[in-house]
Amino acid sequence: MRRRGIELKNAYRLLGPGSVLLVSVGDGERDNLFTVAWNMPLAKDPPLIGLESSKKHFSYDFIERTGEFALNVTDSSLVDAVLGCGSVSGRDGVDKFERFGLTRTPASVIRAPLVEEALASLECQVDQVVDLGSSALLIARVVAAEADPERFRDGEWHFAGGLELIHHLGADRFCVSDRAITGRKR
Amino acid sequence: MRRRGIELKNAYRLLGPGSVLLVSVGDGERDNLFTVAWNMPLAKDPPLIGLESSKKHFSYDFIERTGEFALNVTDSSLVDAVLGCGSVSGRDGVDKFERFGLTRTPASVIRAPLVEEALASLECQVDQVVDLGSSALLIARVVAAEADPERFRDGEWHFAGGLELIHHLGADRFCVSDRAITGRKR
Repeated sequence: MRRRGIELKNAYRLLGPGSVLLVSVGDGERDNLFTVAWNMPLAKDPPLIGLESSKKHFSYDFIERTGEFALNVTDSSLVDAVLGCGSVSGRDGVDKFERFGLTRTPASVIRAPLVEEALASLECQVDQVVDLGSSALLIARVVAAEADPERFRDGEWHFAGGLELIHHLGADRFCVSDRAITGRKR
Repeated sequence: MRRRGIELKNAYRLLGPGSVLLVSVGDGERDNLFTVAWNMPLAKDPPLIGLESSKKHFSYDFIERTGEFALNVTDSSLVDAVLGCGSVSGRDGVDKFERFGLTRTPASVIRAPLVEEALASLECQVDQVVDLGSSALLIARVVAAEADPERFRDGEWHFAGGLELIHHLGADRFCVSDRAITGRKR
């Protein structure tokens, strides 16, 4: 997918609807992917995001060592890859990009690759780790972001040309957002 | 809306899709509502959630004093109330329930009222506050939860009878999820 850099002040809008993410990690030698449904924007300027991760993930070790990861925003066309990347461990030597038909594309700031098929990618550097026992809440700063200009422009997602954002319902089920409504102030 | 208590182990599923929330607060004498799009589940058992709030909100003072709040999950029928509750301050003496056509219903554990028109409500007690400058990330434990049994049962959202979850796009725009898809493991 052709993508273009976006203004960092709008990066939080990429995560606003609560889409499922493919998180990519890498240290320059090896890389990996995992799926995260639990994420949220935390601040607009500087752009901060929150991401929940089990500490047992193979990828968590990359994040601890490099302090970096990328968030790749998915749509309905990626639902099988989303499920696969959340079910298989990179510890078993699986190349999840290859196995699930995804393409690496270089990031502009961090060492982890981005997922070319994603609607958008946010490059992140860890700012703070909140210990939650077996998992951690990663609070990270967005240092670069890019998005498909057909579907995300002027800081907003647009559905007119066809856009199906996905949100996690549980297990292998996702709900699909494919239209926008506007509230009225009363 | 008729609602029924749900098992706490499934509470995270209520928040999974990333819907916009009406947050209700109260100290037994006064109460208030505000809108929060930035929220996520953080743990299944015990159920923890994350919620971002500006410290300037009139409601934030209630949360600091009582350590409690409720999350009320909205759908497309509540979009004008969602926008209104996010635009008007309770500091000005406005009763947002009355102004936006919402009904108070008693919570089972906490003092804040619940929003009867919401699809579901989660009663929360603050566990940890992460300082983010002008805002705070509230990490809270879910102590009770109830949902519309037509739309949420067996720990899952169901769309067959008509369900339109809303997610925030920015300003007055929301996207709508009204159907589910299932991923296939490859």
